[in-house]
Amino acid sequence: MRDAFHEQLQHLTDRMVEMANLVEVAVREGTGALLEADARRAERVIAADAQIDRLQSLVEERTFEQLALQQPVASDLRALVAALRMVADLERMGDLAEHVAKIARMRYPECAIPAELHDTIAEMGSVAERMVHKVAQTVASSDVTQAVDLVSEDDQMDRLRRSLFHIVLDKDWSHGVEAAIDIALLGRYYERIADHAVSMARRVIYLVTGDVPVRSS
Amino acid sequence: MRDAFHEQLQHLTDRMVEMANLVEVAVREGTGALLEADARRAERVIAADAQIDRLQSLVEERTFEQLALQQPVASDLRALVAALRMVADLERMGDLAEHVAKIARMRYPECAIPAELHDTIAEMGSVAERMVHKVAQTVASSDVTQAVDLVSEDDQMDRLRRSLFHIVLDKDWSHGVEAAIDIALLGRYYERIADHAVSMARRVIYLVTGDVPVRSS
Repeated sequence: MRDAFHEQLQHLTDRMVEMANLVEVAVREGTGALLEADARRAERVIAADAQIDRLQSLVEERTFEQLALQQPVASDLRALVAALRMVADLERMGDLAEHVAKIARMRYPECAIPAELHDTIAEMGSVAERMVHKVAQTVASSDVTQAVDLVSEDDQMDRLRRSLFHIVLDKDWSHGVEAAIDIALLGRYYERIADHAVSMARRVIYLVTGDVPVRSS
Repeated sequence: MRDAFHEQLQHLTDRMVEMANLVEVAVREGTGALLEADARRAERVIAADAQIDRLQSLVEERTFEQLALQQPVASDLRALVAALRMVADLERMGDLAEHVAKIARMRYPECAIPAELHDTIAEMGSVAERMVHKVAQTVASSDVTQAVDLVSEDDQMDRLRRSLFHIVLDKDWSHGVEAAIDIALLGRYYERIADHAVSMARRVIYLVTGDVPVRSS
């Protein structure tokens, strides 16, 4: 039987999963807008970020209420503190997906992504989207295997980012400085989305196993 | 007369100020290493980040203990939750200063910064350093005037970042794609240091006045 506190905790978890689902959509649609040079799709991603921010505020308020009213200890306290951090990660991931969409909008009607980088960016978008999807499942199920799995996906993102730079810095690069800067910043945004997903996975591992997660720099 | 809890809170505040002081040094020395192409100075910044991370862990542990043992409510609870967030901001600012130093190290013995950008990067470094300095004072003194002042410094950082892009995207840019990417990423790192300083200032304003700070995206 669940008491009122654990019902509230479940409610907070549900809102976090909802946030993660919205971030997943933002990453997919932001990447789509970028690759298709679709300004309307970009606008939708940018507008949708407000809902992610609202959910963060909601979870923060409720977490705060539970801390003040229930005075939880041990694992319950850890779960609430972890919730505060995870919604901060999710809010930031939403902003990063919005930054991706803003580059699409800024270059419209041109496409920010030269043809030879299309596949690499598409793959970075897919990896990021998959990592956010796994984070949602991990948070929903407290599944540590999934969380550990996520950490390895991050290596793939690093590899993609290196190959991105390899292409941009090649002597045959013909798209100029502006495109190169867009690509460098996009690489950074996707990398940061992945970093936040890993950081969330580590928090879940900590909550479930009590092992202190290794901090990445 | 101060009770044990408020002594602990003061201790946490002192550690945060100590972290902010270390971040200030990291920003100054990272920028110096970058402008002077000084690899040893860059190494010192990179090595020093571990101490910032250690202080974050310490503040997190102590905050957690206080939450569990003292079961604080109202403003005391808010102060502890704010401490968790502010040390996360400071840890991230330390990482960003480290990223600046890593670009200096990567390009050594060359200088990553072409002569015509020297002044703009130096100014971005100064603005970032000053913002971190003010954050330390703001946290130490809960001075809202200082915090409000900090928010306006951020406009200056935005202006500097735009002028950076203006130079890099000029048709007379002669330093190639790699240097342009370094500059774009450096611009982003300084901008993010400023964002975190503003976010900390808003938390102090909230703690002192109870006004919900406006969130930046």
